Amino acid sequence: MAANTFGTRFRLTTFGESHGPMIGGIIDGCPSGLALDLEAIQAQMQRRRPGQSALTTPRDEADQVEFVSGIFEGLTTGTPIGFLIKNKDQRSRDYSNVKDSFRPSHADFTYSEKYGRRDYRGGGRSSARETASRVAAGALAAQLLDRQGICIVAYVSQVGSVICPSLPSAPNQIEVDQYLVRCPHSESAAQMQSLIEDARDTGNTIGGKITCIITGVPAGWGEPVFDKLHAVLGHAILSINACKAFEIGSGTQAAFMNGSDHNDAFVRAADGSIQTTSNNSGGVQGGISNGMPIVFYATFKPVATIQVEQQTVNSNGEQIKLKVGGRHDPCVLPRAVPIVEAMAALTLADMMLLQRSQIL
Amino acid sequence: MAANTFGTRFRLTTFGESHGPMIGGIIDGCPSGLALDLEAIQAQMQRRRPGQSALTTPRDEADQVEFVSGIFEGLTTGTPIGFLIKNKDQRSRDYSNVKDSFRPSHADFTYSEKYGRRDYRGGGRSSARETASRVAAGALAAQLLDRQGICIVAYVSQVGSVICPSLPSAPNQIEVDQYLVRCPHSESAAQMQSLIEDARDTGNTIGGKITCIITGVPAGWGEPVFDKLHAVLGHAILSINACKAFEIGSGTQAAFMNGSDHNDAFVRAADGSIQTTSNNSGGVQGGISNGMPIVFYATFKPVATIQVEQQTVNSNGEQIKLKVGGRHDPCVLPRAVPIVEAMAALTLADMMLLQRSQIL
Amino acid sequence: MAANTFGTRFRLTTFGESHGPMIGGIIDGCPSGLALDLEAIQAQMQRRRPGQSALTTPRDEADQVEFVSGIFEGLTTGTPIGFLIKNKDQRSRDYSNVKDSFRPSHADFTYSEKYGRRDYRGGGRSSARETASRVAAGALAAQLLDRQGICIVAYVSQVGSVICPSLPSAPNQIEVDQYLVRCPHSESAAQMQSLIEDARDTGNTIGGKITCIITGVPAGWGEPVFDKLHAVLGHAILSINACKAFEIGSGTQAAFMNGSDHNDAFVRAADGSIQTTSNNSGGVQGGISNGMPIVFYATFKPVATIQVEQQTVNSNGEQIKLKVGGRHDPCVLPRAVPIVEAMAALTLADMMLLQRSQIL
Amino acid sequence: MAANTFGTRFRLTTFGESHGPMIGGIIDGCPSGLALDLEAIQAQMQRRRPGQSALTTPRDEADQVEFVSGIFEGLTTGTPIGFLIKNKDQRSRDYSNVKDSFRPSHADFTYSEKYGRRDYRGGGRSSARETASRVAAGALAAQLLDRQGICIVAYVSQVGSVICPSLPSAPNQIEVDQYLVRCPHSESAAQMQSLIEDARDTGNTIGGKITCIITGVPAGWGEPVFDKLHAVLGHAILSINACKAFEIGSGTQAAFMNGSDHNDAFVRAADGSIQTTSNNSGGVQGGISNGMPIVFYATFKPVATIQVEQQTVNSNGEQIKLKVGGRHDPCVLPRAVPIVEAMAALTLADMMLLQRSQIL
Repeated sequence: MAANTFGTRFRLTTFGESHGPMIGGIIDGCPSGLALDLEAIQAQMQRRRPGQSALTTPRDEADQVEFVSGIFEGLTTGTPIGFLIKNKDQRSRDYSNVKDSFRPSHADFTYSEKYGRRDYRGGGRSSARETASRVAAGALAAQLLDRQGICIVAYVSQVGSVICPSLPSAPNQIEVDQYLVRCPHSESAAQMQSLIEDARDTGNTIGGKITCIITGVPAGWGEPVFDKLHAVLGHAILSINACKAFEIGSGTQAAFMNGSDHNDAFVRAADGSIQTTSNNSGGVQGGISNGMPIVFYATFKPVATIQVEQQTVNSNGEQIKLKVGGRHDPCVLPRAVPIVEAMAALTLADMMLLQRSQIL
Repeated sequence: MAANTFGTRFRLTTFGESHGPMIGGIIDGCPSGLALDLEAIQAQMQRRRPGQSALTTPRDEADQVEFVSGIFEGLTTGTPIGFLIKNKDQRSRDYSNVKDSFRPSHADFTYSEKYGRRDYRGGGRSSARETASRVAAGALAAQLLDRQGICIVAYVSQVGSVICPSLPSAPNQIEVDQYLVRCPHSESAAQMQSLIEDARDTGNTIGGKITCIITGVPAGWGEPVFDKLHAVLGHAILSINACKAFEIGSGTQAAFMNGSDHNDAFVRAADGSIQTTSNNSGGVQGGISNGMPIVFYATFKPVATIQVEQQTVNSNGEQIKLKVGGRHDPCVLPRAVPIVEAMAALTLADMMLLQRSQIL
Repeated sequence: MAANTFGTRFRLTTFGESHGPMIGGIIDGCPSGLALDLEAIQAQMQRRRPGQSALTTPRDEADQVEFVSGIFEGLTTGTPIGFLIKNKDQRSRDYSNVKDSFRPSHADFTYSEKYGRRDYRGGGRSSARETASRVAAGALAAQLLDRQGICIVAYVSQVGSVICPSLPSAPNQIEVDQYLVRCPHSESAAQMQSLIEDARDTGNTIGGKITCIITGVPAGWGEPVFDKLHAVLGHAILSINACKAFEIGSGTQAAFMNGSDHNDAFVRAADGSIQTTSNNSGGVQGGISNGMPIVFYATFKPVATIQVEQQTVNSNGEQIKLKVGGRHDPCVLPRAVPIVEAMAALTLADMMLLQRSQIL
Repeated sequence: MAANTFGTRFRLTTFGESHGPMIGGIIDGCPSGLALDLEAIQAQMQRRRPGQSALTTPRDEADQVEFVSGIFEGLTTGTPIGFLIKNKDQRSRDYSNVKDSFRPSHADFTYSEKYGRRDYRGGGRSSARETASRVAAGALAAQLLDRQGICIVAYVSQVGSVICPSLPSAPNQIEVDQYLVRCPHSESAAQMQSLIEDARDTGNTIGGKITCIITGVPAGWGEPVFDKLHAVLGHAILSINACKAFEIGSGTQAAFMNGSDHNDAFVRAADGSIQTTSNNSGGVQGGISNGMPIVFYATFKPVATIQVEQQTVNSNGEQIKLKVGGRHDPCVLPRAVPIVEAMAALTLADMMLLQRSQIL
């Protein structure tokens, strides 16, 4: 573990705070010879950026990624790939009310306790701004995986009490992006949007769940015993701001089930491959991919910043009332979709490279 | 990531298969000067071992831990602590029916795909036998944490449809162990036991959920951004055999909530400490402990080995019917309690040591 | 190991090629609360930069370090410290003669073999330009060490056949910098300068040795058995371009000695501390610092770029004659002094933090 | 860095003290499917073990390696390979004179300072006994390399003032083992043996140098910029007890040379491969193997345990005279040969696996 580095053979190290001049990172271990589609990376950045719709924060950040090393004549060279994302919208504002106050369910208090001080401007390093670096690197990792026929698609499957029914098949990104909430089921999407607008209009926020489906992963990836594929995926996903739960396959429903219902029977498919008739395993058995789609779920809490007066404590330990202004998302789920995809891509790119040294 | 190593500063590396002569591990990074209570470690081993009650597999393994280095005159020396656990019950049996068959929802198929071969005796490295090494090391880590006033208690909070109601306060281990199912709520415990006995008597198995509460962790532990405390805890817990979901604090319920309900208001407690009036954060904010109890949940699937004929495929890709005999748990939950505690202890011992280098 | 990352708790990850827009890095794990003297860091950069004297390459690079994260109100915050160094002097030149040729004793051939391609402009990632990032990070690490009373001074102790005699005491940086060659012994310095000028004037280059003395390290640092203090120091120093040998204490002279001469007798000093009467150990015993000055030596080969026609092979495997122009150092030693100090500082800062978790 | 673990993809973690019940280790990351020749591993153990000749310590340890996991039906399975080496010769002796005394140039003082205590029996963890685990794992790694045509041979090239002349070609192990001192040059071997016997007879010890030649490594291995092949080799070799210097290729001689003499001209060999006419690079350029033999040198100090009264300090800080008895080598060089080969093999096995993820 290295705090600001994720991965073993495909590694991302990031830096940067919400209100500094820029954020960015270094990707180390990307194989040489990969032809990068920089526009596709930027397109994924647009899916995460603030201000993209009426459902998101009105902060407008261009989130332009600039690659500054490791690419020559359009191909990766095997050397570290540095990238920068300038912070465009650093408006000079008054931080006096957050400087000495601990916003409820934010990281103000815990960063102060951990480090003895904190950069209080816009949440500093604890801001979700940091996830822009993840999306840039994850979109690059996705291109490495795409060459192997691996496709990662996430979508919003729950907002508040609105739960999207099971889809007949994995949606693609175009289907997901047809709806502002990024739920590819029109009825659910409309209801979710309504809930988010209600939250926004009352200065409140709302939680939800994202489903992610990864197709094309061959059997054999994952590093038991401690680095089982779903354990590292869980690590990756739970490290995203506001994520409260990670489930693989049957997830929390497994608690209710009997073995005779839960077991996934093996069959030989028409193409000769070995498949399972159900997928309660979520594509992972014994911590190793089994060739079926990898299916996982990530629950996100409602955004902690609400436009309502709350009780809290300041840095002197005095009880105070706090009302935080500012521009925030009423629901993080739509913008979290590319972040979930990014962390999944980083995990799988690493697993792909790790597997290369397992057999003679 | 290193597959068979967990941790950064407090590291456990394990070895061993189900049916080899022994399993064991090396603990590296334990500070010197710790007075070890070896009986307490062995007592935790007894809580995990097979054959301890009518609810568990009748296999009887003594699971005696032997420490072979790193301890001198009763104290740790700072050098690596090697330990061995002999496999006592390696009865010579006939593996012909599993040698070439892929048991449904086991790791037979995936290990074969990953490594090109597998030790098919008793599941080899994928057997839950491996978790005995985790319990030994975790019990040692718990003693390091105990000196800081940190207490980790897990208990079974769900089996099938029986869900233990919220407890008024965190139970202690004695209360948990009053019931064979390790649920410290007598009515729920009785119902859970009944469900497990039903499963056992019909050759079936059943899933469930474990709740774990960690008290005494000071504010400030956890390594954002990628190694947030709950992300590494999730990694640790999801790496336990059969675990399908990890939730921190509000967990999957967060999806249903509004920010105004989910936020944990800060207050100054009578003792001067800063606390929160609710604990939807589960003791972790921004990936760092906030001084409140750390509360998490682990869902386990029903054991895959059932005494029922199942459809599957053999290593030639032919469809076959398989009925596996052998001695197995009808429900893994009661024995998983000390494993969950062990992985939590390993995680927190590491976080404790990592925090030592964060402030000048 | 992670190729472009050095360190465990105090970690530097770097990126950037010789002729890209910039190089830079991320320092992760620096404790919070360190007041940085950015001018002192820049001053160390000046000691490494090209064009600083008639003895170095006439290329002129300002090597201005820009810190872009992890510092707030003059203090480190404990979050990653990103920094950038723009490549000022990227003159557009003709690379046709190096594009397809493998310069003798350069990394052209091996980078091509390793990665299947290479950025041939100015050596790409293999250029010593990369060491500028090391100096920036090392100068920051030195400030962390300075608070503990640790002082690192390197100087040129050999150029060709000119060997500086033993100095009566460790020189300071001011004494070292009195001479362009950075040898604080006036007679030797004059002879060395003469040798370097001869090499320069004949289009040739010359090798040498650097001595580094580290005072103030307390007894107890170093991580046996594999990460002995001098083993990691050796790793750090040998990773510097052109370094061919690392010696600690008696170094290669130890081969000639008897135990009765080599052993360092312990004595109690006037201040009550335990010291040794000789220092053949070079301040390290059993891989752990013993409180005496740490003394090591680094040998550097003559720069491979010479203004002489050489025999080589091109990328088609054809024998060719090659004469490389360009602006290069006749002797790398004077500019390597701050690089050696930087790698020593990075190593010791890491060892300092690692030691914090060794005792209860 | 992880103190008792070496390697990234091919990893060795060791445990054990000189006078505990056993030492041993875990090899993690060895690819599956390797057919192990356990007798060849044991044969290498015999080359390191004490008591093998009149030139070594009369302590007699069988050093029998027992593999306890990770091997099934004669092949590695890809899971961790645990191994144990029992300490046979733990005679109960009187440690009172070393318990509270710091032997000169041993690790007694530094271990006490680092950990606040130490296992004083026979040097504990700092004893060269620990290197037996390295030889076991290194011999296994050598079999992985042998399949690629890689051969590692070390020999003693200097003892005191006796320096073996350059050999016309790399010797093989049989030639090296013809002489007790493991120098394959008969005249030098005789002189070395005489020097060692003189040292032994006067209760003294003597230092020396080992040369190691590795043939068959393809171009392209090594992980710049920080994990250059020779930097990691240096780390590995310098971590061996008593090693004071590491040199690659021209080594310390490079300081005396001009670029025009030092550069290795590329030529196309008769077999079409690209080779160099000289090998001052020692087979490594820019931190990456170039296909030529890798040649390095390791200098070892004279053993610190001498049968002579020495001045030292006890744990109360009082000056004392100390004469240590016991059974020790007059010269560590002959027995260090297989240890050097082992650390080289561990390094190269890791580099081989790391290279697998560098190209698409």
